[in-house]
Amino acid sequence: MPAYRINDWLENPRLVDVPVPQPGRGEVLVAVAANGLCHSDLTMSQIAGEIGELIGWRVPFTLGHEIAGAVAALGEDTTDAPQVGTPVALVSPASCGRCAYCLAGRDSACPNGLAGRGYGRDGGLAPYVVAPVRALIPLNGLDPVAAAPLTDAGATSYHAVRRVLPALAPGGTAVVIGAGGLGGFAIQHLKACSPARVVAVDTSPARLAVARELGADETVSGVGSERGDPARVAGALKEACGNEGAAAVLDFVGTDATITAGVGAVRPCGAFGLVGSGGGRLRASWYGGLPREAEVFTFQGSTIADAHAVVALAAAGRIRSLVEVFPLDSVADAYDALDDATLRGRAVITP
Amino acid sequence: MPAYRINDWLENPRLVDVPVPQPGRGEVLVAVAANGLCHSDLTMSQIAGEIGELIGWRVPFTLGHEIAGAVAALGEDTTDAPQVGTPVALVSPASCGRCAYCLAGRDSACPNGLAGRGYGRDGGLAPYVVAPVRALIPLNGLDPVAAAPLTDAGATSYHAVRRVLPALAPGGTAVVIGAGGLGGFAIQHLKACSPARVVAVDTSPARLAVARELGADETVSGVGSERGDPARVAGALKEACGNEGAAAVLDFVGTDATITAGVGAVRPCGAFGLVGSGGGRLRASWYGGLPREAEVFTFQGSTIADAHAVVALAAAGRIRSLVEVFPLDSVADAYDALDDATLRGRAVITP
Amino acid sequence: MPAYRINDWLENPRLVDVPVPQPGRGEVLVAVAANGLCHSDLTMSQIAGEIGELIGWRVPFTLGHEIAGAVAALGEDTTDAPQVGTPVALVSPASCGRCAYCLAGRDSACPNGLAGRGYGRDGGLAPYVVAPVRALIPLNGLDPVAAAPLTDAGATSYHAVRRVLPALAPGGTAVVIGAGGLGGFAIQHLKACSPARVVAVDTSPARLAVARELGADETVSGVGSERGDPARVAGALKEACGNEGAAAVLDFVGTDATITAGVGAVRPCGAFGLVGSGGGRLRASWYGGLPREAEVFTFQGSTIADAHAVVALAAAGRIRSLVEVFPLDSVADAYDALDDATLRGRAVITP
Amino acid sequence: MPAYRINDWLENPRLVDVPVPQPGRGEVLVAVAANGLCHSDLTMSQIAGEIGELIGWRVPFTLGHEIAGAVAALGEDTTDAPQVGTPVALVSPASCGRCAYCLAGRDSACPNGLAGRGYGRDGGLAPYVVAPVRALIPLNGLDPVAAAPLTDAGATSYHAVRRVLPALAPGGTAVVIGAGGLGGFAIQHLKACSPARVVAVDTSPARLAVARELGADETVSGVGSERGDPARVAGALKEACGNEGAAAVLDFVGTDATITAGVGAVRPCGAFGLVGSGGGRLRASWYGGLPREAEVFTFQGSTIADAHAVVALAAAGRIRSLVEVFPLDSVADAYDALDDATLRGRAVITP
Repeated sequence: MPAYRINDWLENPRLVDVPVPQPGRGEVLVAVAANGLCHSDLTMSQIAGEIGELIGWRVPFTLGHEIAGAVAALGEDTTDAPQVGTPVALVSPASCGRCAYCLAGRDSACPNGLAGRGYGRDGGLAPYVVAPVRALIPLNGLDPVAAAPLTDAGATSYHAVRRVLPALAPGGTAVVIGAGGLGGFAIQHLKACSPARVVAVDTSPARLAVARELGADETVSGVGSERGDPARVAGALKEACGNEGAAAVLDFVGTDATITAGVGAVRPCGAFGLVGSGGGRLRASWYGGLPREAEVFTFQGSTIADAHAVVALAAAGRIRSLVEVFPLDSVADAYDALDDATLRGRAVITP
Repeated sequence: MPAYRINDWLENPRLVDVPVPQPGRGEVLVAVAANGLCHSDLTMSQIAGEIGELIGWRVPFTLGHEIAGAVAALGEDTTDAPQVGTPVALVSPASCGRCAYCLAGRDSACPNGLAGRGYGRDGGLAPYVVAPVRALIPLNGLDPVAAAPLTDAGATSYHAVRRVLPALAPGGTAVVIGAGGLGGFAIQHLKACSPARVVAVDTSPARLAVARELGADETVSGVGSERGDPARVAGALKEACGNEGAAAVLDFVGTDATITAGVGAVRPCGAFGLVGSGGGRLRASWYGGLPREAEVFTFQGSTIADAHAVVALAAAGRIRSLVEVFPLDSVADAYDALDDATLRGRAVITP
Repeated sequence: MPAYRINDWLENPRLVDVPVPQPGRGEVLVAVAANGLCHSDLTMSQIAGEIGELIGWRVPFTLGHEIAGAVAALGEDTTDAPQVGTPVALVSPASCGRCAYCLAGRDSACPNGLAGRGYGRDGGLAPYVVAPVRALIPLNGLDPVAAAPLTDAGATSYHAVRRVLPALAPGGTAVVIGAGGLGGFAIQHLKACSPARVVAVDTSPARLAVARELGADETVSGVGSERGDPARVAGALKEACGNEGAAAVLDFVGTDATITAGVGAVRPCGAFGLVGSGGGRLRASWYGGLPREAEVFTFQGSTIADAHAVVALAAAGRIRSLVEVFPLDSVADAYDALDDATLRGRAVITP
Repeated sequence: MPAYRINDWLENPRLVDVPVPQPGRGEVLVAVAANGLCHSDLTMSQIAGEIGELIGWRVPFTLGHEIAGAVAALGEDTTDAPQVGTPVALVSPASCGRCAYCLAGRDSACPNGLAGRGYGRDGGLAPYVVAPVRALIPLNGLDPVAAAPLTDAGATSYHAVRRVLPALAPGGTAVVIGAGGLGGFAIQHLKACSPARVVAVDTSPARLAVARELGADETVSGVGSERGDPARVAGALKEACGNEGAAAVLDFVGTDATITAGVGAVRPCGAFGLVGSGGGRLRASWYGGLPREAEVFTFQGSTIADAHAVVALAAAGRIRSLVEVFPLDSVADAYDALDDATLRGRAVITP
């Protein structure tokens, strides 16, 4: 079968011919119907051998970690697996199921999940992939093309939203900074799971228009990766929050500017969640600068339960994925479009 | 001014002429625009002097504990009160603000709240009523007629819904047994505040039709105050919950039949909340009979924060009150209609 | 090697000679140093073939589900396992690691854990037993004889205690009804993990004396399996709780009498947890009879995290096991002593 | 009566003669038995008129906000107050009891509490002070001299400890940075309320010796207000935490050095709480620099419930106050000793 692979350390991926894999004990073979492309894929060919071995990656491996398809064959010890033919999505983050974090239902913090399907192991950019029963999520009628991007982009944003739900009582406001892919999901999750008003912040009028379509109650023209004026944005945000401040701010950008504006907009007892990898920080003294009695947190991926939750939300029609579909032999073009930021949704490959 | 009063122990209420009250320290005078009628009003004239004095009631007092209107005058020490003219609803349950329960934000469990506006003190069935600043909820544009029933019927059902929200992840199902006034609010609160599917249970096809209008995803013909067949209903509920059982069941009836059916439908780690005063219990052994790892609870009224929450939900258009409006001089007719169960919504008096 | 086995459905267990087992993928071989005996062992030979097969049990199997020892050999895919020679305890309840309950850290509610080591699979009453990596708990210096009973009796009582910890603020009181094996652990867990005063209730003066040694601040002579006078006990409990009622009551007996006394002693917003299998229930109407704003729950075993917690408590010297040690060839005598209730601690076999 | 007062803006406090105050509605008169001195008292005479008026302070006012004594007389509407003669401590932070924060039991975030007893109103450095019923905490046998410092120093540290209790399972470690007054209380609260190992960090060997006496399981020589080497301390802390990282770090210093060391020692899903006013911040990028899945928070004083909790802990003998006692006419000497840091405990005045 064809597979879009990284064949050796520091080599660019390409389509090669490989044998169909066999499921082991506790595993199933999945016929891939859709695989979403992620920005992190673009950097994987830059992993050198030493680092790769340190984190447990093996070459060659097939790219693709946002996967949906159908069960094609069962390995041993899979009596609790869905039947052959069942449409499923595959949990994207890897985890061991044995460590203290996994045992507490906080598997996204598992220290043993550095290698997984599509990053150090064979992923979904091929007609077939192998996965353990623990990673299977029945689709319940959801289109696999819509399901694939939920397993990473959708689940990561849900992971952040779920954490702030207890702070979102009726009358409260949630702010989403950065209305791109993950932020767009966050807006939808917030509307589906809470009574909060949602304010979206972005520098792009086009993304703010999409944010409104996805359910944002209000939009604010925001600070970006450049040095903006966080004090102005914090002020605009507080105004958008009825002068009480935001019950929760989720920052999908993460620059000095967005962190400063976002933290400044949080009300006492509220929450600020950092998801964006912008490399920023709060420049003010924490004493006096952090919102009082509030919570500041950052995240690590998403849990298996988060992936089940977003598939359930989409199957119930409460959220939707914005996608552009490409065939497997156009995968290089799709990655180019992703790199050039010319896509209007998540690129999904249908092998 | 006219006031619909209980003049002495064991006397029926009637309209009498009384002076306009004066607000004390920390209190305001409220011009009543709307007052909802409650079943409990019908029994208040049956309180005898001994019991009344035991619980701190004083006669005469004006009935009416679901009140909305506008601030008409300010007493001393009210600098944090809304300005004269501000439309407000009044928190219905009384509480002291000083006991351990009040200090923990659990004021509905306050042991010092047995007497309040409309039950042992002058209530809202008059053009004016006095209330402490702590009881005022600005309406933010909400119609007082819609707001009045929220303060008791709406807030009590929200109090139960709020408690089960942590159990309601996407893909989960909430069951509301009894789709009358409180149950109808519960259906709306669940849809506004959670991603849960909502299943309504009732013996009345008319109430089930209203339940669907209010947002129920599915309805089940249920068990009532008569001995029904709880095993059949528990089975029908589990089927309606996708065979996994309900994440939460709220029982607004409370007979042996509804408790048995409801408890039997709860999945492990779920919740069963009793609100209805039907006087029933679970006849099975608790070991084996209660759902494992789940929570069973009953309630006490609603907190001040709950009242703020439901006013916010209604002001944002997320929930609505079904009401029938009567002038003050028809208050006796309105109570008769309430007693005869011929109303199609909450009776609201506009003094 | 010798093994104390149930050889066929409805046969009594006996010592037989069996081969040393081999660990499979993800499993290790454990040399058993200690195995605690449990009342539930006494009934396992009464399981008939039909029921046994229904719940997935296989005959023959070796008894014993409270196991501690040392890693003796490693199977495949066990790079995250402790080294050979490491002393470990084994998690007692079985669970699949894949279902929604396991994924949420609530593995005690796993529907796929009906068969496990010592109940339907080979357990610890033999020199060697096989276990998956997920079930291993390093002892960190704790004596295996003390560790073995922690994995079931100790963990089950901790599971109940952990759930009520949020209700136990300074100044609050926790009541433990039934000061036997599990209750004795509960008293210790409460003292080690919370600031609560602990009141122990039992019908046996000897057990109440032990309860005081284990840390109980006060004891109350209680209601037992016979019809006692729950109103008297509820009154005595409230008095012991400073007239405010108990913040939490854990009932390790579970008769009508203990449930009625215990529920009656809970203060508003408190908790009542049923652990005892006495088959009782609350005879009063739930509306008015259940404590307001409180939580009533029953349990299912214990989680893997609970087992880690109790081993940590014991390794830190915060709790201790009361045990009587027997060699493997006296296992039948030890079960007789357990059945006759002549033991003064948990019977532990050292194979 | 004598009173130690700030008579006008920018004037130093001094002992003057004033009339005994009268309790108003809902208030009682308290005969002061003990009043703890706080560092913040030293700066209050620097408040200028404009700022003072902005935050609602009035001159003259008597200093002293850590007060214990006995009820001496009752005002109107105090039927729920303790009887005359009852020993009580007084809640130190002021709050309105009416805002959304107070109503949720989070009264330390009340925006209306900027003026209170001893800061803008008459406090406890006099034989009598007036307080509302809501501020009274019965002592239940606790010595007023021990109780006074609990109301601010003891309650503030408890407020931070209480927040991290859910993260402190058996086997976990809590780190206290800064083992002075508040840190010393935190060590005791942690030992009384949780099963955590406690590691104390300080630059002073003398304070570390006291920390051990108060229950710390281990001490680490730490970073101070000077630029130390936070990487070394973070390393030493992780080692002290068994290489897994700390479940919780409470920083009572708050410099760049302590924040960097403390944040670096927190394990995934742990907590870092800032209490110290050192004015520092984390210099690293938050993405990658903040601990994953953990919580960072800062505080605002303490709640009324916190004050009740610490009085209960002390009355039960679970925590103790280290104090040095001075008569009222030596109050200026006591403040000098406080300013010179020559005290070995909290200075307490006995008027």
